[in-house]
Amino acid sequence: MADGGGEPDHLAGERATAQFDVDGMKVAWAGSRHAVEVADRMARLVASDPVFRKDTRTMLSRKELFKDTLKKAAHAWKRIVELRLTEEEANLLRLYVDQPGYVDLHWGMFVPAIKGQGTEEQQKKWLPMAYKFQIIGCYAQTELGHGSNVQGLETTATFDPSTDEFVMHSPTLTSSKWWPGGLGKASTHAVVYARLITEGKDYGIHGFIVQLRSLDDHSPLPGVTLGDIGGKFGSGAYNSMDNGVLRFDHVRIPRDQMLMRLSQVTREGKYVHSDVPKQLLYGTMVYVRQTIVADASKALSRAVCIAVRYSAIRKQFGSQDGGPETQVLNYKTQQSRLFPLLASAYAYRFVGQWLKWLYTDVTQKLEAKDYSTLPEAHACTAGLKSVTTSATADAIEECRKLCGGHGYLNSSGLPELFAVYVPACTYEGDNVVLLLQVARFLMKTVAQVAAGKQPVGTIAYMGNIQHLMQCKSAVNTAEDWLNPAAIKEVFEARALRMAVNCAQNISKAPSQEEGFSELSPDLLEAAVAHVQLIIVTKFIEKLQEDIPGPGVKEQLHKLCSIYALHLLHKHLGDFLSTGCVTARQGALANELLGKLYAQVRPNAVALVDAFDYTDHYLGSVLGRYDGDVYPALYEEAWKDPLNETVVPDGYQEHLRPLLKQQLKLSRL
Amino acid sequence: MADGGGEPDHLAGERATAQFDVDGMKVAWAGSRHAVEVADRMARLVASDPVFRKDTRTMLSRKELFKDTLKKAAHAWKRIVELRLTEEEANLLRLYVDQPGYVDLHWGMFVPAIKGQGTEEQQKKWLPMAYKFQIIGCYAQTELGHGSNVQGLETTATFDPSTDEFVMHSPTLTSSKWWPGGLGKASTHAVVYARLITEGKDYGIHGFIVQLRSLDDHSPLPGVTLGDIGGKFGSGAYNSMDNGVLRFDHVRIPRDQMLMRLSQVTREGKYVHSDVPKQLLYGTMVYVRQTIVADASKALSRAVCIAVRYSAIRKQFGSQDGGPETQVLNYKTQQSRLFPLLASAYAYRFVGQWLKWLYTDVTQKLEAKDYSTLPEAHACTAGLKSVTTSATADAIEECRKLCGGHGYLNSSGLPELFAVYVPACTYEGDNVVLLLQVARFLMKTVAQVAAGKQPVGTIAYMGNIQHLMQCKSAVNTAEDWLNPAAIKEVFEARALRMAVNCAQNISKAPSQEEGFSELSPDLLEAAVAHVQLIIVTKFIEKLQEDIPGPGVKEQLHKLCSIYALHLLHKHLGDFLSTGCVTARQGALANELLGKLYAQVRPNAVALVDAFDYTDHYLGSVLGRYDGDVYPALYEEAWKDPLNETVVPDGYQEHLRPLLKQQLKLSRL
Repeated sequence: MADGGGEPDHLAGERATAQFDVDGMKVAWAGSRHAVEVADRMARLVASDPVFRKDTRTMLSRKELFKDTLKKAAHAWKRIVELRLTEEEANLLRLYVDQPGYVDLHWGMFVPAIKGQGTEEQQKKWLPMAYKFQIIGCYAQTELGHGSNVQGLETTATFDPSTDEFVMHSPTLTSSKWWPGGLGKASTHAVVYARLITEGKDYGIHGFIVQLRSLDDHSPLPGVTLGDIGGKFGSGAYNSMDNGVLRFDHVRIPRDQMLMRLSQVTREGKYVHSDVPKQLLYGTMVYVRQTIVADASKALSRAVCIAVRYSAIRKQFGSQDGGPETQVLNYKTQQSRLFPLLASAYAYRFVGQWLKWLYTDVTQKLEAKDYSTLPEAHACTAGLKSVTTSATADAIEECRKLCGGHGYLNSSGLPELFAVYVPACTYEGDNVVLLLQVARFLMKTVAQVAAGKQPVGTIAYMGNIQHLMQCKSAVNTAEDWLNPAAIKEVFEARALRMAVNCAQNISKAPSQEEGFSELSPDLLEAAVAHVQLIIVTKFIEKLQEDIPGPGVKEQLHKLCSIYALHLLHKHLGDFLSTGCVTARQGALANELLGKLYAQVRPNAVALVDAFDYTDHYLGSVLGRYDGDVYPALYEEAWKDPLNETVVPDGYQEHLRPLLKQQLKLSRL
Repeated sequence: MADGGGEPDHLAGERATAQFDVDGMKVAWAGSRHAVEVADRMARLVASDPVFRKDTRTMLSRKELFKDTLKKAAHAWKRIVELRLTEEEANLLRLYVDQPGYVDLHWGMFVPAIKGQGTEEQQKKWLPMAYKFQIIGCYAQTELGHGSNVQGLETTATFDPSTDEFVMHSPTLTSSKWWPGGLGKASTHAVVYARLITEGKDYGIHGFIVQLRSLDDHSPLPGVTLGDIGGKFGSGAYNSMDNGVLRFDHVRIPRDQMLMRLSQVTREGKYVHSDVPKQLLYGTMVYVRQTIVADASKALSRAVCIAVRYSAIRKQFGSQDGGPETQVLNYKTQQSRLFPLLASAYAYRFVGQWLKWLYTDVTQKLEAKDYSTLPEAHACTAGLKSVTTSATADAIEECRKLCGGHGYLNSSGLPELFAVYVPACTYEGDNVVLLLQVARFLMKTVAQVAAGKQPVGTIAYMGNIQHLMQCKSAVNTAEDWLNPAAIKEVFEARALRMAVNCAQNISKAPSQEEGFSELSPDLLEAAVAHVQLIIVTKFIEKLQEDIPGPGVKEQLHKLCSIYALHLLHKHLGDFLSTGCVTARQGALANELLGKLYAQVRPNAVALVDAFDYTDHYLGSVLGRYDGDVYPALYEEAWKDPLNETVVPDGYQEHLRPLLKQQLKLSRL
C-alpha cells in the first residue's frame, strides 16, 4: 500500500515476477475481505493525518515524546468519536498510530480487569466512566522486587471494620509498584493487586480499584507517591509510555472498591467466596495471550517487509568488471536467513487466527461450565506466547542485520521496532516461566497417556504414542518432504519422544520436584518442540482450507514447507537423537530448502506487499513501497538536530582549544 | 572492584563461597600482573573524575550528548598529557571513558592508515600533527550505496597534470561517503578512498589525505558538503559519535596527498607500483581484527558480570509458604543460559590473547618477507572476528533478558551496551561476508590436503584427515567429556567432515563458483564449526600453561568444558549427522553440563569479580559491586526529566480536555 502516487516504482520489476494473486494473499493474511478493507481504511486514515506523523519521533526528548503521545491519544479519541468508529475500527486506528501510551493499558488491562473480576454493580459503576475516559485506568501488579511471581507481592490491603475501608500500604521499598504502563503520569485510577488482610489473616492477592490522582488538577492524592521509572531501551520506542512507580502510605479506599466477583469481604470483615468459579479468569488470560501472538506476527511481518524490500534494492559484489552489482536478495546466504523469517510471519499469523477461534471456543465452554479443555488451552496459549515472541524479537534483530549498516540508523525503523517489541518476551509471563508451565502440562499428559487416558486438542497426538515412539520417517527424496504428513509425523515424533525422555529421567530423581528442577533445561527444549509442532500443524491445517486466488495456496504451501524444514534443520540434533529422522533425510530436507528459496525468490516482494502496510506504519526509509531508498536516507539525515549548525555546538569550548594546542593543563 | 567503601556488601555471601584465588584469576584474565595493575589504575582514574560521569548519558539530547563527547575527549587528552601517560595507559584511559567519539577513528584508523600506506615523507609530514591533535582525522571509505564491497566505491580522484592535483569528486548521490565516524562534525582531515583516474584510465581504489575543514574556524572547505547521518540504535550508545556524510564537488588536493607507499602517480600522471609488497597491508587488518576480538570479550564480560550479580540478588518463586524466595541464580534454567556466556567471555578473552601473539608473529614474518602464513592468519582473524562479535551481540541481549523486566531499563546499562555493541557485527567486514572468506579458504585447504600438502597453523588438524574422517568418539561416561583430548577430537572431526562434505557437494555443481554460491548457507555452517574449533583449541592450550593461584586452573578447566560442551549441545545436529558422536554421547555431554553448572554456581560471582570492572565502567544499577540494587533503581528513576513535574507537561492541552469531556469535536 503506497502512500503517494505517480512516482516511479523501483520495485516494479520485482512485483511483475510474482506468481500469485497479491489481492487474494491479502485476504488470506487479513482473514477476510472485510478485514482487508477496514484495516486498509484505518491505516490510510492514520497515515494521512499530520498529527500522527512519527518520522522525527526518535529525535524528541523524553518530555517532548511523552507530550506527543498525550496529543496523539487525545486526537485519536477525537477521531474515534467524530467518525463514530466501531470497536474494530477504533482498535485498528490505535494500532496504526503505533505509539505505546496509557490508552493501551486503559483498554487492554484496566477495563478487562473490571469486566472479569468486578461484580455487576461494580461494572455498572466504573465501566461507563472508563468508556468515556472520565477516568483513566492502569493495571498495577508488578513491584520493584517482584515480577512473575504474583504470590510474592508485598503491597497490603488491610480491612478496617471501624470505617468500612481498606488501607492500601507499601510496607517496604521492594513493594513499590513498578512498571505498570500509564501509571507514572497519565492514570487517574488503577486496579491494584495487594495482599488482602482481614481479621488478622492474610488471604493472598486480590484486586482493588484505587483512585490515584485528583480529577480536578491531576495531582496525586494524599499518601500516594507517583513517578515515572525512567528511560528504557531505544530512542522513541517504549519511552512514549509512562511506566510508573507507586507507593502507598496508608491510603484508604471504600470496601466496595475491592473487585468482588470471586470473593468478598463483608461489612464485618468476613472473607467469603462467591459461587462464581475461578476458572472464569482463564478466559481473560487466553484472550490477552491471543492478542500477543497476533502482535508477534505483525511485528515480525513489518521487519521482514523492510528487509525483503531493501534486499531487493541493495546491491553488493557480484561483478568482477565494474558492471552492476548483484541484488542482495539473490544471495543464497541472504535467502537462507530471510525467507524462514518470511515463512514464520505467515506461520504466526495463521496460528494467531486459530487462537482467536480457540478463545471463542473456550468462552463458550466456560459459559457452559465445561472446564475440561482449560488446562490444554492454557498450556497452548502460554507456549505460543513464549515461542512466537522470543522468535520475533530475534527475527527483528536479524532483519536489521540483513539490512547491513543502514539497518543501524533510526531512519531504517528497525532499531525502534526491536526496542519497542522485546518487552513482549517478559510481560504477561516471562517466556521461560511460561515454557516451564507447558512442560509441566506435558509431563502430566505423558503420565495420563501411560494410564490410558486419551488427550484432546493440541495434545491429542500424544494418544498416538505406540506409533510415534517407534516410527521412522519414510522420506527418501528431497521432494518427499513436501508432503505435509511426512512433516507432521516427524514433528510429532520429536515432540513426544523429547517429552517421554524427560518424564523417564525425572522418574529417576529422588523426587518429582527435584527431577523437574534438575531437568528444567531439557524440559524447556521439549516444550519448544511441542509448541513448534502446534504452529506447523496449524499452518498445515490452514492449507487444507479453501484459499481463493490464483497461486495463493501454492505460495503458502512453499512457505509452510520452509517454516517446518528450517526448524528441522535448526533443531536437527533433536530429530536425529530421538531417531525419527536419519542424517540423510536431514540432508534431503536441507536440499529441498535451497530449492524452495529459489522458488520463493521471484515472489518475495509480492509476499510482503500482501501484508498491506502503509509507509507510515512501516516507518522505514529502507522499507519504502517504491524502493526509492537512497535519496530518502540522504534527506532524512539532515533532519537530525546535530545538523542545525555546520560547526557543532562545543567547538569553541572543546575542539578549538585542542586543535590550537591551547588546552589549559594543570602542569607541564 | 568497588568504587565506594564501608557500605554493606550484599554479595559478601556469594564471594565467600568462591573456591579459587580471585586475584590469580584477575591475572589470568588480564594477561599479567602488570596488566591488572595498570588497568585498575586507569579505571579508577576515570571513575573518580566527575567529567567522565555517564549516569545521565541516556537522558541527553543528541546535541548535548555530542557536546559531552567533545568535552570528555578534550579532558581525556588533557589528563593524558598532564600525567604523561604511556600509550598503553592512554589507550586504557580511553577505553574506560567508554563513549564512542572521533578520537577512536583518529587513533584507530586515520593514524594507522597513514602509517601503513603513507611513504616515509608522508608519515614525517602528517603524523606529528596527528599525534598532537593539530589535525583530527577520520577514515572515509564506505559510501551511501556501497558497504562491504570496496571495489564498488564510486568517488573519483582524477589526476590533473596541468596543476599537479587530484580532483576529488562525488559523481552520484550513492557515492556520498556515509558512516565514517568523526566525519560529520569533528574531523578536519580524512583518509578518503576513491577510484584513482589518470591518463583516462581507472586504476581502482586508492587512499588520499584530504583536508575537509578550515583550521581557522572549522567550516567546511569550498566544494565540501559535510553532515551527520542522523540518529542510531539506542539512547546514548553510538549517538555520541558523529558518523558522517561527505560529498565532494571537484575538490582539488596536491598530488602528494595520495598515499603512495604501494603505488604512485608521477608528475606526468604515470601510474607506477612501488616495490613494497601489497601483503604488508594485511598486518594492519590482523591488528584491527585482533582488537575487535579483544573488545568482544570485554563487552560480553560486562554483560555477564551484570547478569550474574543481579541473578544472585534477584529472587523469584521457590517458596510455597510466604518464606523467602529463591535466588534466580539457583535455577537450572538460569544457569544453563548464563554460565555458557560466562564461559564464552573467558574463551574469547584467551583466544584474543593468542591473536595478539599471532599479530606479532605475522609482523615478524612480514618483515622477513615470509608471506606463507598470511592466508591462514587472514582466514583465522576473519573467522574469529565474525563468530565472537555475532555471539557477543546475541549474548548481551540474552543477559538483558536474564535480568527480567528491569534489564529493559536504561539504568540496567544493558540496552546501551547492546546498542553500542551490535555495529561490530557489520563494521570491518560484515560477519557473513567474512565467514564466506573463511569457507573459501577451507575449500582451498581441503583441495590442498587431498593433493598431499600439509596445512599449518589453525588449519593443521586437517592434515590428520585419515583419522578424523572415520574416528568415532570413545566417550563412555559423562566424565569422559572432561578430557580435553576427547573434546578436541570431536570438534576437529565435525569441522573437517563439514568442510569435506561441502567440497564434495560443490564438486557436483556445473562450476566451482556456482556450487560455492548454491552451497553458501552450508559453507557458513562449516566455517563456524572451524572457528569454534579454534576457540576451543586455544582455551585448551591455555589450560596447558602454568596458571598460578589456588584453584584458578580448576575453574578455567570447568569453564572450558562448559564452553565446548554447550556448543556440542547447541550444534548437536552437526556432530550427529557427521557421525563423530552418538546420541548417547550427546546426552552424556548434556548430563555433564548440568553437573558443571552446579560446580560453577558457588564461584559465579567471584568469576565475574575477576574481570575487575569498576561500577563506573559497568554503568549498571543491576551490576553494582555491592549488590544494593533496589534502592539504587528507585533513586535512578527520579532523575528522568519526565519526573521534573508531578503533573506532566501536556496535561492542560491533552489530558484535561479528555477527562473533562471537553475535546473540541468537528461534529457530533
